[in-house]
Amino acid sequence: MVINKTLGFSTRGNGHLIDVTSQVSGVLTESGIRSGILTVFVVGSTAAITTLEYEPGLIKDMAELYDKLAPANKRYAHDDTWGDANGFSHVRAALQGPSLTIPFEDGNLYLGMWQQIVLADFDHRPRQRNIVVNIIGE
Amino acid sequence: MVINKTLGFSTRGNGHLIDVTSQVSGVLTESGIRSGILTVFVVGSTAAITTLEYEPGLIKDMAELYDKLAPANKRYAHDDTWGDANGFSHVRAALQGPSLTIPFEDGNLYLGMWQQIVLADFDHRPRQRNIVVNIIGE
Amino acid sequence: MVINKTLGFSTRGNGHLIDVTSQVSGVLTESGIRSGILTVFVVGSTAAITTLEYEPGLIKDMAELYDKLAPANKRYAHDDTWGDANGFSHVRAALQGPSLTIPFEDGNLYLGMWQQIVLADFDHRPRQRNIVVNIIGE
Repeated sequence: MVINKTLGFSTRGNGHLIDVTSQVSGVLTESGIRSGILTVFVVGSTAAITTLEYEPGLIKDMAELYDKLAPANKRYAHDDTWGDANGFSHVRAALQGPSLTIPFEDGNLYLGMWQQIVLADFDHRPRQRNIVVNIIGE
Repeated sequence: MVINKTLGFSTRGNGHLIDVTSQVSGVLTESGIRSGILTVFVVGSTAAITTLEYEPGLIKDMAELYDKLAPANKRYAHDDTWGDANGFSHVRAALQGPSLTIPFEDGNLYLGMWQQIVLADFDHRPRQRNIVVNIIGE
Repeated sequence: MVINKTLGFSTRGNGHLIDVTSQVSGVLTESGIRSGILTVFVVGSTAAITTLEYEPGLIKDMAELYDKLAPANKRYAHDDTWGDANGFSHVRAALQGPSLTIPFEDGNLYLGMWQQIVLADFDHRPRQRNIVVNIIGE
């Protein structure tokens, strides 16, 4: 069995981290599929998906990491291509990556207790963002 | 056909890199599945999965990289949340990511000769760590 | 249904980013599979896969990022192991990661309009590089 479901999120951009675990798990529950893999993929080149313990301290730490790796207050060659200003967003998104695959059994994702699925929107403005949840299993 | 198998590892934490290739490949061999994808997922928010050439020099180089990206001797906001001291572990794990998916054919993973599957335990203490191996195929 | 197809690319190495979207999408079209997931995996420990907006400015920005994270003009312990000089290539590849999984529906990958699938060859010399495209679906 194969299911694709698109979920929409309104983000603040600027590195906004959103805990999407409950919405993603909801798709799994509704599907009735018991054993398999669930893939989360974010559409677009200025956002990414990962897992982390979703608490305010770590959210600050991740913001600091991303700004250290690809500072927002720096000029990027990408900005010159389009007269745009989100080169740092693209660089961060490409490094972090857009996809994540999680196995599940008995209808439950194998996530740790402190491990949430997180959408990172690195764009420099608020966005309507779509993620696709794919489930394959039996 | 779908298979989930949990494998346990005793780690030293502190960035311990463990070559899990033979155990993961063993699950594939036992399954008898010939063609498909194998997903490796680590449970928890202070560990990650990737591939690398598992040799002592590169193991040192990776430790140096991770310490440059998210130094262990720095105060993290996450540490203040819990009175804990593993903020750097969480940051490194979220950046590296918890999952990896590898195609296989004729029962053999498409890994390069010098490409091992590696569990990275970034926590600041030894851990009992579980990874889940999922196989989907025919 | 399960399909594995190997695609070969001649790269310049040295961080060469190659847009492989059309070749990868071609495998999906030929397969006739309508709904499922497509996994791209690069064989070897000095290359990686991600998505990005493939335009000359961002290609320069990514080169700058990788050189900041793991400079090419630095001595790595890996180089001492083999008398080789591509320690930086291995470090970059392990951080970026070798696999990517993208859902598809009606035979179309859920990629954004400015989101290309990119092979990054970090080795310090030109290579013949294989990526494996796996498709599972119905």
